[in-house]
Amino acid sequence: MTTTRLEAFSDGVFAIAITLLVIEIKVPTETRGLARELGKLWPSYLGFVISFLLIGLIWANHHTMFEHIVHADRLLLFLNTLLLMNVAFLPFAAGVLAEAFRTGDGQRTAVVFYGSALVVGGIFFNAIWEYARRGHRLLADTITARQAHTVSRRFLLGPALYLLGVIVGAFQPIAGISLFALLILVYWLPVTAREYD
Amino acid sequence: MTTTRLEAFSDGVFAIAITLLVIEIKVPTETRGLARELGKLWPSYLGFVISFLLIGLIWANHHTMFEHIVHADRLLLFLNTLLLMNVAFLPFAAGVLAEAFRTGDGQRTAVVFYGSALVVGGIFFNAIWEYARRGHRLLADTITARQAHTVSRRFLLGPALYLLGVIVGAFQPIAGISLFALLILVYWLPVTAREYD
Amino acid sequence: MTTTRLEAFSDGVFAIAITLLVIEIKVPTETRGLARELGKLWPSYLGFVISFLLIGLIWANHHTMFEHIVHADRLLLFLNTLLLMNVAFLPFAAGVLAEAFRTGDGQRTAVVFYGSALVVGGIFFNAIWEYARRGHRLLADTITARQAHTVSRRFLLGPALYLLGVIVGAFQPIAGISLFALLILVYWLPVTAREYD
Amino acid sequence: MTTTRLEAFSDGVFAIAITLLVIEIKVPTETRGLARELGKLWPSYLGFVISFLLIGLIWANHHTMFEHIVHADRLLLFLNTLLLMNVAFLPFAAGVLAEAFRTGDGQRTAVVFYGSALVVGGIFFNAIWEYARRGHRLLADTITARQAHTVSRRFLLGPALYLLGVIVGAFQPIAGISLFALLILVYWLPVTAREYD
Repeated sequence: MTTTRLEAFSDGVFAIAITLLVIEIKVPTETRGLARELGKLWPSYLGFVISFLLIGLIWANHHTMFEHIVHADRLLLFLNTLLLMNVAFLPFAAGVLAEAFRTGDGQRTAVVFYGSALVVGGIFFNAIWEYARRGHRLLADTITARQAHTVSRRFLLGPALYLLGVIVGAFQPIAGISLFALLILVYWLPVTAREYD
Repeated sequence: MTTTRLEAFSDGVFAIAITLLVIEIKVPTETRGLARELGKLWPSYLGFVISFLLIGLIWANHHTMFEHIVHADRLLLFLNTLLLMNVAFLPFAAGVLAEAFRTGDGQRTAVVFYGSALVVGGIFFNAIWEYARRGHRLLADTITARQAHTVSRRFLLGPALYLLGVIVGAFQPIAGISLFALLILVYWLPVTAREYD
Repeated sequence: MTTTRLEAFSDGVFAIAITLLVIEIKVPTETRGLARELGKLWPSYLGFVISFLLIGLIWANHHTMFEHIVHADRLLLFLNTLLLMNVAFLPFAAGVLAEAFRTGDGQRTAVVFYGSALVVGGIFFNAIWEYARRGHRLLADTITARQAHTVSRRFLLGPALYLLGVIVGAFQPIAGISLFALLILVYWLPVTAREYD
Repeated sequence: MTTTRLEAFSDGVFAIAITLLVIEIKVPTETRGLARELGKLWPSYLGFVISFLLIGLIWANHHTMFEHIVHADRLLLFLNTLLLMNVAFLPFAAGVLAEAFRTGDGQRTAVVFYGSALVVGGIFFNAIWEYARRGHRLLADTITARQAHTVSRRFLLGPALYLLGVIVGAFQPIAGISLFALLILVYWLPVTAREYD
């Protein structure tokens, strides 16, 4: 089985989850002093921006991963479905995060909850890769086993660092969320700019 | 008529329905004791996970089915639309299920309602296959009539087992929902792992 | 410019609009007597089914139309965007319809409103076709000018019959909605079954 | 890296954002005097139409742009993600606009807010193009450096004119929104009709 339709389906889920993030930003019903009302929504904007860049990043990495994975079997479909389930859950986790920062209560819980979703997503992501490269069964010939191993190490760093963010966030929620934002930006930019330029 | 655009459209509906499932999990507005509030949402999480794996499964089977169906006529489009209608309805059925388990009332009704949606979906799924293989008109040459008949028998098992879940659930809702979960996992994994490895 | 990405984008909008229809069916918050509560939602189910078959039908016809239209210019993109705007509006119109039948008030208005959306959509649909076949500029060579003219006549019947439904519905809402349902089924089935079989 | 999957993902986000616009139009719960209730929603309809044509336009321009951009690197993916983030935000901005015109309060703020989103989107759009044409690295050979420069000038006009709309709207909200509507129509039609016909 080729991965064409798997990629199309995954792209659909990524595109919908990323766009649904906006639904968690509620239009103010009080429009007197609208500027102030819009300002009060900053936690929602922040959650939107971080989560959008995050899902965009997972999509880009998924894209990269499936340039190497060229065959699919049923278990790969299943693991990919688990990853997509995690991605589809992120708008809810982002909503919880925004609500906690808006009300000022439950911020630690919300950061731990959000970060845990990232850790679980990272684990599913790695599971797909590890399964696909076992015996090089599902990989293309354009990547060597050794290169695949190098990719593994880089992929594994993700959930480890997100876990660090969860631990930090359990004590200092602002520091935790800042760490997530930093990681997302770092993953988007320098490493990869070097790689692709 | 080829099935390319039918598959693209179906993939879209599957991807949207599966991602919309998260909309039924409402962000708690009370964030004092957020951990407990998030915990109380367990029926929503459960409904989300089961329904996500279910729709992912229907997608994967749809994918498999349309590797064999290579021609489309108007009636096939119509039957496929009925199946998609059923899939698009599942987020609502999952919401009803979660609400009943959250409030503790109406669980039997909710399990029967949810399971009936699965049965109807299974019937539509089988209708597509039976129509397509009639006289081998819409099938590829890569599958024999006999193989198509074997596939039929396996496909027919789905709604029969879901119906069993409905009957069980009418008396013991927890047992019914557990049976649905079990069926979904069984369909995802062992049978197919053997088949595709 | 080819029509590939136009079709992909249109398929996306069709798939989303058709799946969003389910959002207008609200999960009952009262789960005591859940069966009765679910039963009371029949206008929502009906609106869902009719609108789902309708959008599926527009999609199938759009598909057929773009087997003949193989070139696109900017004005065609614009006309197609108007059609998609109409399709994206249908979940709202379906919601209005369901709400009026649920409350028992405003049924005539709702049927006229819904039917008018169908008429406008039919006009946009015809506008695309008429524009594309003008001088045969955007059509494939596989269809003759005369065949294109025959298609025109069949396409024009749609909005005319929907308009009849609007007029009937302004006096007898149930008759109007029944006419829409009948038209949608008729368009889906016999005509086309003869054509494609 | 080719741009195929980037385009597919972008098409998905455009299609979802454009279709989600309808969610901001709330079905009236009061159906006595339904015609009047539906009439009162005119700001929502207007916001829907303007924003739908706007996102359709950005999609069409994105389409045109990626006929020339044929390679992608990580930074291009990132810039494209920023543009998509802006597009996904537009349903919220449209909702704010409609709410302000419905209540009669905060119209200036709402027009400035909406228009600023257009300006930012225009900047992201230009950033993609400028990055892609730097040293002609990511462009196809079918466009010359000089042609790419001409395209740049036309693209830059967009955010400049939207900025004008923001300034006008800060004083006269109706004039500001009319200017946005005018710009969108002008961009859709004459310039491009000349070009593609």
